[in-house]
Amino acid sequence: MQGYVPGEQPAGTDYIKLNTNENPYPPSPKVREAVIEEIERIRLYPDPMANRLRDRVAEIHGLARENVLVGNGSDDLLTMVMRTFADQGDPVVSPTPTYTLYHTLCEIQGANYLGIPYRDDYSFNGELVPAKAKIVFVANPNSPSGTLLDEDLLSRVATRIAGVLVVDEAYVDFSRKNCLGLLKSKKNAIILRTLSKSFSLAGLRVGYALADAGVIEQLAKVKDSYNVSRCAIAGGMAALGDIDWMRENARTIIASRRRLTWGLEELGCFVFPSESNFVLARITNYPAEQIYRQLKRRNILVRYYDIPRLRDCLRISVGTDAEIKRLVIEMAEIIGWRTKVGSQK
Amino acid sequence: MQGYVPGEQPAGTDYIKLNTNENPYPPSPKVREAVIEEIERIRLYPDPMANRLRDRVAEIHGLARENVLVGNGSDDLLTMVMRTFADQGDPVVSPTPTYTLYHTLCEIQGANYLGIPYRDDYSFNGELVPAKAKIVFVANPNSPSGTLLDEDLLSRVATRIAGVLVVDEAYVDFSRKNCLGLLKSKKNAIILRTLSKSFSLAGLRVGYALADAGVIEQLAKVKDSYNVSRCAIAGGMAALGDIDWMRENARTIIASRRRLTWGLEELGCFVFPSESNFVLARITNYPAEQIYRQLKRRNILVRYYDIPRLRDCLRISVGTDAEIKRLVIEMAEIIGWRTKVGSQK
Repeated sequence: MQGYVPGEQPAGTDYIKLNTNENPYPPSPKVREAVIEEIERIRLYPDPMANRLRDRVAEIHGLARENVLVGNGSDDLLTMVMRTFADQGDPVVSPTPTYTLYHTLCEIQGANYLGIPYRDDYSFNGELVPAKAKIVFVANPNSPSGTLLDEDLLSRVATRIAGVLVVDEAYVDFSRKNCLGLLKSKKNAIILRTLSKSFSLAGLRVGYALADAGVIEQLAKVKDSYNVSRCAIAGGMAALGDIDWMRENARTIIASRRRLTWGLEELGCFVFPSESNFVLARITNYPAEQIYRQLKRRNILVRYYDIPRLRDCLRISVGTDAEIKRLVIEMAEIIGWRTKVGSQK
Repeated sequence: MQGYVPGEQPAGTDYIKLNTNENPYPPSPKVREAVIEEIERIRLYPDPMANRLRDRVAEIHGLARENVLVGNGSDDLLTMVMRTFADQGDPVVSPTPTYTLYHTLCEIQGANYLGIPYRDDYSFNGELVPAKAKIVFVANPNSPSGTLLDEDLLSRVATRIAGVLVVDEAYVDFSRKNCLGLLKSKKNAIILRTLSKSFSLAGLRVGYALADAGVIEQLAKVKDSYNVSRCAIAGGMAALGDIDWMRENARTIIASRRRLTWGLEELGCFVFPSESNFVLARITNYPAEQIYRQLKRRNILVRYYDIPRLRDCLRISVGTDAEIKRLVIEMAEIIGWRTKVGSQK
């Protein structure tokens, strides 16, 4: 078995990092203050259930504490879902291509992963999901496509299946829509959120799950006792207490996403309509893998997937406008240089 | 299934907390500096393998990076061990009574937990461990007894078994001995360490595993991609860079442990010889559970276990000398008060 391979995290700082969908802007200054204050209590264990943070999340979404569970990033919550709802051999489903961790977690658990292909335009036929599925994972917006499925479609999937529907909304703050409405009608719906992207806290590790109280109770049984650190609880509370800061950054990123999309389209790429803080660009006039490699040599990191349907694509995080401009210029050079060589033949 | 129930973590700060083996002294001031500096990079994901921290750990123990894996506390590493080495129905063994999380993790995994009782003096007959064991967990020093098994005995257990021997050395810095020597001869030995106790970082979540490179590689496959936060990596590095600070605190705690032991013995308790930052006291002249409850009413928390062999015992963390003095005085009052009432009958 192969473990999940995350995007490169080079030690040096001179890279333009457009490969792991980090936020190019810092978190609210309140996070810094809160973490510094919390260090005074760092010799003590954190609250095992992070109840103050649960309460803040609940308040934001108009839910109760019992509908919220906090994780060491949303990956931690994905692991809890897997360990709670899938035994060895159980069918676990995702539309594909998607976040490959779902597959990896299935392999670890010995569950039976079934990837059901998105259509070419990343729409999805929910009726292909087998009713016996124990878990259906849907990244929505999806990674690496950046595209969004409709709540109605997901609601029908939740109704079809015997198990739980996990809607992984890691990128939802960059989207026009969310699926919180599912929680009202579907007891088997689990919504996952993370503070890594829109709240600029990838390094702190805070995510949360929203679901029916019975589901949350089951998940809590398999979580590590002290899964969320004092720094993460304090920093998470501070970030969620300054939603305006996040919204302002998200607006800026959405505007930059538009400029990145135009730039890539001018280079002849097809850009899938993105509802997230990255875009998936299909490149037909030059091998995507070579662009990835040459960008890396020029100190720009983007994400290339050597798997079916994605070999002609790059996933590019939305950085600052300056970073995007630099990326587009370098890509133009790479593609243009090849065109010249080609024409000399 | 019941989840693991950790010690109480009350929200108020006016308790004397002698129930979860936290360090009464703060961590090295270098931790604070390092965490504050790291907040500047908190928008970026941490290094998935925490390699700088691995290198520091490796250097301290005279090992290679490949022999080290870092976890979100050592509980995270226990979970990785369980998910790597035990499938459903596999036999997993511990001497008991011990850290109850081993049993809980088995239930979550569907493995078959076999607790083999320590002798009354907390020595252990290693030949009772079945050879087919996939994992043997030994807390050493043990919790809640505080007692130590010999490296020779554990070495023989490692030789006997088909699976891995996990020596959980959470409390080892308060002990005269450790089992690092096992790593030289036993490829199936895994040593776990935590920075929660001796390094005063319970709230930060840093632990590590030491083992053969092949074992570490397998464990790394099941870990969450970004299991250790930037704050934990930076704070952990700083703490391990100031070993003298930890040693000084450990010396103070060992001296206080002696005073606590004398105090409890004067009250008529039997105190098991402790090699950790807590003591297990057997109380024959008063119901232990009532002492626990009455201490709680007096704002002192200690640990009471309502399970066989421990119902006449309290586990008491070694606090400051002032805290210990207060505990002994209150216990004397509680026990004395009852004696008086009894004599009036």
